[in-house]
Amino acid sequence: MRITLAQLNFHIGNFEGNLQKIKIAIQKALTQNAELIVFPELAVCGYPPRDFLEFNDFIQQSKDTVDAIAAFTAESETGVIIGGPRKNPVIEGKDLFNSAFLIHKGKVQQTADKTLLPTYDVFDEYRYFEPGNTFQTFHFKGIKIALTICEDLWNIGNENPLYTICPMDELKKQNPDLMINIAASPFDYTHAKSRLKVLKTNCLKYGLPLVYVNHTGAQTEILFDGGSLLLNEKGQVVHECPYFEETIFTFELSDLQSDKNPVKKETQHAKDKYPLIYKGLVEGIRNYFIKLGFRDAILGLSGGIDSALVLVLAAEALGKEHVTAYMMPSQYSSEGSITDSRALCENLGVKHETIPIENAFQTMLQELQPFFKDMPHNIAEENIQARIRSVYLMAISNKFGPILLNTSNKSEGAVGYTTLYGDMSGGLSVIGDVYKTEVYALCRWINRNREIIPKNILDKPPSAELRHGQKDSDLLPDYEILDKILLEYIENRKGPDEIKAMGFDAGLVDRILKMVNTNEYKRFQTPPILRVSPKAFGMGRRLPIVAKYLS
Amino acid sequence: MRITLAQLNFHIGNFEGNLQKIKIAIQKALTQNAELIVFPELAVCGYPPRDFLEFNDFIQQSKDTVDAIAAFTAESETGVIIGGPRKNPVIEGKDLFNSAFLIHKGKVQQTADKTLLPTYDVFDEYRYFEPGNTFQTFHFKGIKIALTICEDLWNIGNENPLYTICPMDELKKQNPDLMINIAASPFDYTHAKSRLKVLKTNCLKYGLPLVYVNHTGAQTEILFDGGSLLLNEKGQVVHECPYFEETIFTFELSDLQSDKNPVKKETQHAKDKYPLIYKGLVEGIRNYFIKLGFRDAILGLSGGIDSALVLVLAAEALGKEHVTAYMMPSQYSSEGSITDSRALCENLGVKHETIPIENAFQTMLQELQPFFKDMPHNIAEENIQARIRSVYLMAISNKFGPILLNTSNKSEGAVGYTTLYGDMSGGLSVIGDVYKTEVYALCRWINRNREIIPKNILDKPPSAELRHGQKDSDLLPDYEILDKILLEYIENRKGPDEIKAMGFDAGLVDRILKMVNTNEYKRFQTPPILRVSPKAFGMGRRLPIVAKYLS
Repeated sequence: MRITLAQLNFHIGNFEGNLQKIKIAIQKALTQNAELIVFPELAVCGYPPRDFLEFNDFIQQSKDTVDAIAAFTAESETGVIIGGPRKNPVIEGKDLFNSAFLIHKGKVQQTADKTLLPTYDVFDEYRYFEPGNTFQTFHFKGIKIALTICEDLWNIGNENPLYTICPMDELKKQNPDLMINIAASPFDYTHAKSRLKVLKTNCLKYGLPLVYVNHTGAQTEILFDGGSLLLNEKGQVVHECPYFEETIFTFELSDLQSDKNPVKKETQHAKDKYPLIYKGLVEGIRNYFIKLGFRDAILGLSGGIDSALVLVLAAEALGKEHVTAYMMPSQYSSEGSITDSRALCENLGVKHETIPIENAFQTMLQELQPFFKDMPHNIAEENIQARIRSVYLMAISNKFGPILLNTSNKSEGAVGYTTLYGDMSGGLSVIGDVYKTEVYALCRWINRNREIIPKNILDKPPSAELRHGQKDSDLLPDYEILDKILLEYIENRKGPDEIKAMGFDAGLVDRILKMVNTNEYKRFQTPPILRVSPKAFGMGRRLPIVAKYLS
Repeated sequence: MRITLAQLNFHIGNFEGNLQKIKIAIQKALTQNAELIVFPELAVCGYPPRDFLEFNDFIQQSKDTVDAIAAFTAESETGVIIGGPRKNPVIEGKDLFNSAFLIHKGKVQQTADKTLLPTYDVFDEYRYFEPGNTFQTFHFKGIKIALTICEDLWNIGNENPLYTICPMDELKKQNPDLMINIAASPFDYTHAKSRLKVLKTNCLKYGLPLVYVNHTGAQTEILFDGGSLLLNEKGQVVHECPYFEETIFTFELSDLQSDKNPVKKETQHAKDKYPLIYKGLVEGIRNYFIKLGFRDAILGLSGGIDSALVLVLAAEALGKEHVTAYMMPSQYSSEGSITDSRALCENLGVKHETIPIENAFQTMLQELQPFFKDMPHNIAEENIQARIRSVYLMAISNKFGPILLNTSNKSEGAVGYTTLYGDMSGGLSVIGDVYKTEVYALCRWINRNREIIPKNILDKPPSAELRHGQKDSDLLPDYEILDKILLEYIENRKGPDEIKAMGFDAGLVDRILKMVNTNEYKRFQTPPILRVSPKAFGMGRRLPIVAKYLS
């Protein structure tokens, strides 16, 4: 049997656009003589549809799309497997299933419902779906198929299984020939490795080959890296689809027999963290703009490393002619900041403009003088500068239509070393899930062949330049130490005692954790952050503002 | 048996403070000769603890608090029922249960695990907890008790049950004498009525009396109204605790026999929507400030009805001496706006200050002139004014420490008739879940005895006053119509065809729904909104920014 994988980039709620994309993929697969075409999880409506699933109209349009696919392939011998929401015919329980449909000869012939519903981190599936409770393999063209959806394969080989049931254990009892798993499995820099491990374990446990089809592209904060896989019954990789690219790939099912075919190398990209993050962030920016119907971006270029990195990423994602950098110097800006910024723009061929903030700053200080009197300058005056920059950038955005990109990194977002409505402004936070030490590593990787980001930007000590001689290190420990503590607390959910036991200074740990927790109120109002780590700020990390814990 | 209800206001993660409050309640109950004291769901850690539940340290501190309660009551004959997280001893499944503990003679004697885990709207319980799967009544002082947790009683008398199991059906088989339900059931203006209906239905179905204990207070956006109830086996209300107040109430179990006692009137407060919302918003503000350790608030007073209402609420919540109103007129401010604002402040005895924005506005326009050239004024210039006001207010906040209150209403938040980083600024959105027509109704209710809010503020046509002669009705339909369409779409999740079928203009419906969906990006960055309706913007309504659905 010839099978085609359709690793595509869908658009949430864009039923017409998604259907068009699905039809083109089917036509291409038919020219390659495919007998079965496999699309990812919830492909008809895009993933994650979130609370749109609570609208009957949305569910009906999803169903209409499935019906349109059935009509489109009615005259063909070729089958289609695709994911979509399905109404639960039973009154008790949630109203929907997260289903996979086998469409053949003009109608849905088989349905498989997702049993294991991820409800952690960025996932909310039990918010919408009833767990599937029937386990039925089916025959298609003489092959007995065990069809599952994403997480259904993930309750295996795990020291701490999240679920009390294992769908493949049930399906295996019916002696299938092949596993097909349709997925919507978000990217993070650890994911390719864990995905391969889990899928291999399934092949070995059940002695079956596996076809795994994932989404590619990005949906607001969530990135999908594709990387669809074909494994033989020994868990060896027969084929891996590219990362962050749409792909239509057709193969013979017999290719998945370990005795017939040479085995490919392991996954191609999983090992290199920074190239992967770079590609993910570029795709994240590009998808955000294209799917919202925008082409142009602006950002404030400070002379520091964070905005430099975002500028490089934006120019790559949108094209250098679609990005404009604004330098907004004050009396506290160093001469180096301006010349370094200009050099970076010239290296990239990006347009740059200058709007000094000094006049507005002085005017505002004057108006506030009756209140501030002769109180010493402090965080209030510092934040005014950051906020004036935001007013200018948003004015440009409102006047000419580009989206403002936010340039804050994860370290400063964590400890609140940011100005709400100032440098926290923007439509999209590009590197809000990238720690400062990772920002440096990404920049060094970008500079691996030639100096794109001026060396001076990488070398000078980090500073917000909101007063004379300010350095990040005035208030924060070295980022090498800070980022390690943050990783243990945020990604690894270690408590204070556990982190101290790793050898970090006890007072420092308490101070950092307190900063993280008391700044939840700022992160609540942060722009959406492109997620590249296993635990990003945003929808995958939900904490109360009003609390008194380690704070 | 004498039982005490402890309807208290807990603080998330404040184990020491919560334990102290629990001990004081126990001492008071003991002086009233209580034999059993009942506290609400997850009382030891506060509700909702959200992702703090993923930290072992947090779970350990919860357990330590339960142990401390056991130690505190070890010498007494009195039992305590209280809610807290419990480690799941089984490896498969989620790591925690949401449990109720019966503590007696120095240790936990009985445990009941919550089976029905609400995972919709503001609830995320399946994110953390494994559903309880054992159903065991227990004896205490000769009474056989069926102990359940909140949602466990809610899968009944429902046309569309969310769950396939009904815990009380299981417990009833063991012939209990009494139902006790410990809850964390958030307020909305419809909730008291639906709560009473559900609890009554349980009493009638099982022929048992019921003790129901709820939280009071607020946790960031979520309000808890208390309203704990005692019902007899006929579902008649024997006692209702006050709304939004901490209460220790002791009663004899025999009071819950329908043949022995006169029946109280139905719930006291459930009928009046606006007094309830008023009380809820006041408590919401007060809790936000107290629990974060703040006392003072500021807000921008525009002369419009929204900021007028927020000022009244803030003065009530924090005391008039803890609120300062800032008037920030521009060339477009009407004279009436300034005099009306002043009159309101004088009525309330609230301090007011003036910071004109004209100088900063002109300075910024001048700096932007090289870019804007002679392009006509539009939304860009309008937003600059709103953002300058935000810079001034945040500067005052940063300098002197008060929290800025946001004054946007739900109607304008819905359609995006707001300025990001301008009037959308603030630490807390007080009326972001109150439609404009409800804002008017609340103000009329506030003015029911005497004119607190000047009549002129209620009478004049709504305007943002960001250009000459501007009216909200230039861009929006009458709020009477707008709010009805929004309610059908947001609260009732009706689709466009359903709303049109109700008689609204088709073009208008499409335009409004599109405005709601395309402005998701703004609401993503909104401050936390006090939730008073069944569907507020914020954690209970989760939609993608990048989508193409009705947009």
